[in-house]
Amino acid sequence: MADRSLRDRVHEIIFEADTPEGKIFDISLLVLICFSILVVMLESSEDYNEIYGTAFFYIEWILTIIFTIEYVLRLWVTIRPWSYALSFYGIVDILAILPSYLSLLVPNSQYFLIIRILRLMRVFRIFKLGQYLSEGDQLGRAIIASRNKIAVFLFAVSILVIIIGSVMYLIEGGTNDGFSSIPRAVYWAIVTITTVGYGDITPQTQIGQFLSAMVMILGYAIIAVPTGIVTNEMINTDPKGSRVSTQVCRYCSKEGHASDAEFCKYCGGRLNEV
Amino acid sequence: MADRSLRDRVHEIIFEADTPEGKIFDISLLVLICFSILVVMLESSEDYNEIYGTAFFYIEWILTIIFTIEYVLRLWVTIRPWSYALSFYGIVDILAILPSYLSLLVPNSQYFLIIRILRLMRVFRIFKLGQYLSEGDQLGRAIIASRNKIAVFLFAVSILVIIIGSVMYLIEGGTNDGFSSIPRAVYWAIVTITTVGYGDITPQTQIGQFLSAMVMILGYAIIAVPTGIVTNEMINTDPKGSRVSTQVCRYCSKEGHASDAEFCKYCGGRLNEV
Amino acid sequence: MADRSLRDRVHEIIFEADTPEGKIFDISLLVLICFSILVVMLESSEDYNEIYGTAFFYIEWILTIIFTIEYVLRLWVTIRPWSYALSFYGIVDILAILPSYLSLLVPNSQYFLIIRILRLMRVFRIFKLGQYLSEGDQLGRAIIASRNKIAVFLFAVSILVIIIGSVMYLIEGGTNDGFSSIPRAVYWAIVTITTVGYGDITPQTQIGQFLSAMVMILGYAIIAVPTGIVTNEMINTDPKGSRVSTQVCRYCSKEGHASDAEFCKYCGGRLNEV
Amino acid sequence: MADRSLRDRVHEIIFEADTPEGKIFDISLLVLICFSILVVMLESSEDYNEIYGTAFFYIEWILTIIFTIEYVLRLWVTIRPWSYALSFYGIVDILAILPSYLSLLVPNSQYFLIIRILRLMRVFRIFKLGQYLSEGDQLGRAIIASRNKIAVFLFAVSILVIIIGSVMYLIEGGTNDGFSSIPRAVYWAIVTITTVGYGDITPQTQIGQFLSAMVMILGYAIIAVPTGIVTNEMINTDPKGSRVSTQVCRYCSKEGHASDAEFCKYCGGRLNEV
Repeated sequence: MADRSLRDRVHEIIFEADTPEGKIFDISLLVLICFSILVVMLESSEDYNEIYGTAFFYIEWILTIIFTIEYVLRLWVTIRPWSYALSFYGIVDILAILPSYLSLLVPNSQYFLIIRILRLMRVFRIFKLGQYLSEGDQLGRAIIASRNKIAVFLFAVSILVIIIGSVMYLIEGGTNDGFSSIPRAVYWAIVTITTVGYGDITPQTQIGQFLSAMVMILGYAIIAVPTGIVTNEMINTDPKGSRVSTQVCRYCSKEGHASDAEFCKYCGGRLNEV
Repeated sequence: MADRSLRDRVHEIIFEADTPEGKIFDISLLVLICFSILVVMLESSEDYNEIYGTAFFYIEWILTIIFTIEYVLRLWVTIRPWSYALSFYGIVDILAILPSYLSLLVPNSQYFLIIRILRLMRVFRIFKLGQYLSEGDQLGRAIIASRNKIAVFLFAVSILVIIIGSVMYLIEGGTNDGFSSIPRAVYWAIVTITTVGYGDITPQTQIGQFLSAMVMILGYAIIAVPTGIVTNEMINTDPKGSRVSTQVCRYCSKEGHASDAEFCKYCGGRLNEV
Repeated sequence: MADRSLRDRVHEIIFEADTPEGKIFDISLLVLICFSILVVMLESSEDYNEIYGTAFFYIEWILTIIFTIEYVLRLWVTIRPWSYALSFYGIVDILAILPSYLSLLVPNSQYFLIIRILRLMRVFRIFKLGQYLSEGDQLGRAIIASRNKIAVFLFAVSILVIIIGSVMYLIEGGTNDGFSSIPRAVYWAIVTITTVGYGDITPQTQIGQFLSAMVMILGYAIIAVPTGIVTNEMINTDPKGSRVSTQVCRYCSKEGHASDAEFCKYCGGRLNEV
Repeated sequence: MADRSLRDRVHEIIFEADTPEGKIFDISLLVLICFSILVVMLESSEDYNEIYGTAFFYIEWILTIIFTIEYVLRLWVTIRPWSYALSFYGIVDILAILPSYLSLLVPNSQYFLIIRILRLMRVFRIFKLGQYLSEGDQLGRAIIASRNKIAVFLFAVSILVIIIGSVMYLIEGGTNDGFSSIPRAVYWAIVTITTVGYGDITPQTQIGQFLSAMVMILGYAIIAVPTGIVTNEMINTDPKGSRVSTQVCRYCSKEGHASDAEFCKYCGGRLNEV
């Protein structure tokens, strides 16, 4: 019974953020995660690694042990451990500690610790940023609603860049090292059409430069397309701007009425009777 | 008669995707096309060509023979072979095999095999992705509806980049190899105004850099224009977001009904009585 | 009298495009202008100039003489020559021939002949592309309607890039040749914030790269602003998408009512009485 | 009493722009500020500094003394000097003169004089560009209204670039100097995803180039998101296009009136009775 209530209390601290202890726990966790990511990033830099290498090594292991204990506690306090272990956060939590142990066997695998960054997504729950979540949700819905259009768009762009790349390979291939193969030319086409423009591969011949200019203007025009898609969906999913209300007709149970509608547009029943 | 029914069956397998055999045929075809494109792309890379050159050669010819047989079959099973041969897919299908035969006469012409990628557009029909087609159609209509505005825009941009390029040629031409001629300077202007920015040609003089900065800010402002055009058209052609329907209620003469409305949303009168 | 009617006929040929002769004249003119621009562009390229230099020289003078005759004719047939000479096209027409004569005195001034490209704007009138003009007009109105917002935006961006440039000069100035003065650093800031990204000047220090990354993300966010402005105006000036009808209240003569309004929103008078 | 009225008059000249003297004062101030910024910018350029160094030094001190006198005057004429000193303009005004005095102790600190540029924001008040201010205000409100969505978006982008950077570090780190540490790789990811594309760090391996291409297309797609957010908010905050007002008609309880409506557009009832 005492054990049961201990489990309950630990559960409250770890999984909830309502009590002061829970809040302290969650914020400490966030700080540790940020600190841990910083260490992994700095460790990858040779300059810092030479000086602080040993310190990084110990910090990493201390953090890994803390996160391991936290993971075990989470498993212990959950009534159905498997459902937690297989949930999104459960998988992220185990992936956030595995690379450290893996690095004992496979060198350099500690860089996968960067996956810990996904744990930061808890920040929304901890600070009760429900509003932000709903904003994110709205963004997500707009993107999901436009996924078909974006898929068609990406399919068309893929075909386009392969054709453009091949043509440029035929034009520039012989004289320009940058266009030494079709895959490289396709890479160039993507760099150009997305307006990234590294400049590591550039056309040298006059006809190649002319074609590139055409491709750029094309890219200029079609960059408008995904913007148009997302903006359109965003206007349609925006609650403030929705031209479609949440009203349900009490006669035919159809939805999708304009916010200023008085009668159901499907069956003619009056909508707003109170 | 038996021949006739054989033609029918082959037609069903090749042109339809309703029967299991038809589905298997179509999917195999897609896989072979993808494989064929991959081979052409890898063949262009010297590294791979040195090692697998002979293999690529044989694979290409085997695929070409398969596609040739398929093309002949398509001609045979179609009742009006010419109407197929002159249709969009018919032309793509013949273009997809011709380069192989051409490469016997003209070296390197096998790279035109990349045109096979257009055959992938069959993917929509095969997987009954009608919904995607309608999305693409909507995209297409938005782009077609805005073609006049885009034409005016491109005409204005063309005049602009030629003028900017000429001015930069006068400023930088003498001292900067990158601006050695007006066409090159126009190429630079396009690279800059589309925000691609390769950096293969950059202004060196102070006045040149000042002018470039102006051009960039101009490009920054006018990139908004095609986006605005397409977004606007997309909002107007979007069935969900269509604000304008030409329906007028015959009872209260009110307009502005959604395109799927059956009853007037102001007075409840039936809209579509014929 | 005969002279008078000759003037009339020449006027019709030169200024109108209704008669077959007028059409032929106008199209020949467009072709000559395009040809002339091509010659100026190619002349600037040393490769071509070496081989065809003399030919270019003669072609240029022949075209200049033709355009001069045309200009004199236009002056002659116009009833008020000054009003033509001072009109937009009149000024463009004289600017299109002056550089040739100027090049006798000032070398290289023939490159100003590129101004001839503005004469191409006649294309709209010649082919009666009135529809395109109205599209361009609508574009223009959207841009004019948003000029205040764009002015505020550009003012804010200017202040921003000067501050960012100065900070980067302080950070990178000592060690990085690219940031050798504040004006250069401001040039870099503009190249970065507009996402052009030549790469001719790049941050080298860690803190400089961190700051650049912030600037890029900022630029990423604020590129949305002009797009939003123009899209918004375009939706508002688009006749199809206007949420504001052309109704004028017969009681208070105010405009700007929503298309679904029944009563004047200013004085309460009924709007749609017929 | 005479002193009092002198303070009043000086107050009117310095703080107001209604009298001719006030206008002359304000315009002179703007000119001096612009001149001062130009001097700071040119001073940073070694070429100019060598020739005009001494002149710049004296100009700077003369301007600083003028601005100091102006600041003291502003403090003197204000009834509550502290409230001015702690206001936005008050802080900018003191920051605009401090660096000069600081440069006596700390070399190079005169470059902070660039902060004087913020004083230019007075331009709106001076020229009574109230309309522009309201445009800026509208822009500001659109940006503020979308700050939550933009925060979520930037949070997601941050996580994304850290993950992409780490993966690229693992792929390219060994062979490519540009990806020598995770922070550098993250810098590359930001340069790429924002489509800036300096080209100072570029992928060299085939798998790295493939991944970069994916990142670019991703960036291409998600650049649409902030644009969509801001456009959406701008449409909603635009007075001309505003679809939403919180007014409810007290007669027919209908909502959705334009923000400048005085009468209900459905029943003609007065909206704003107090």
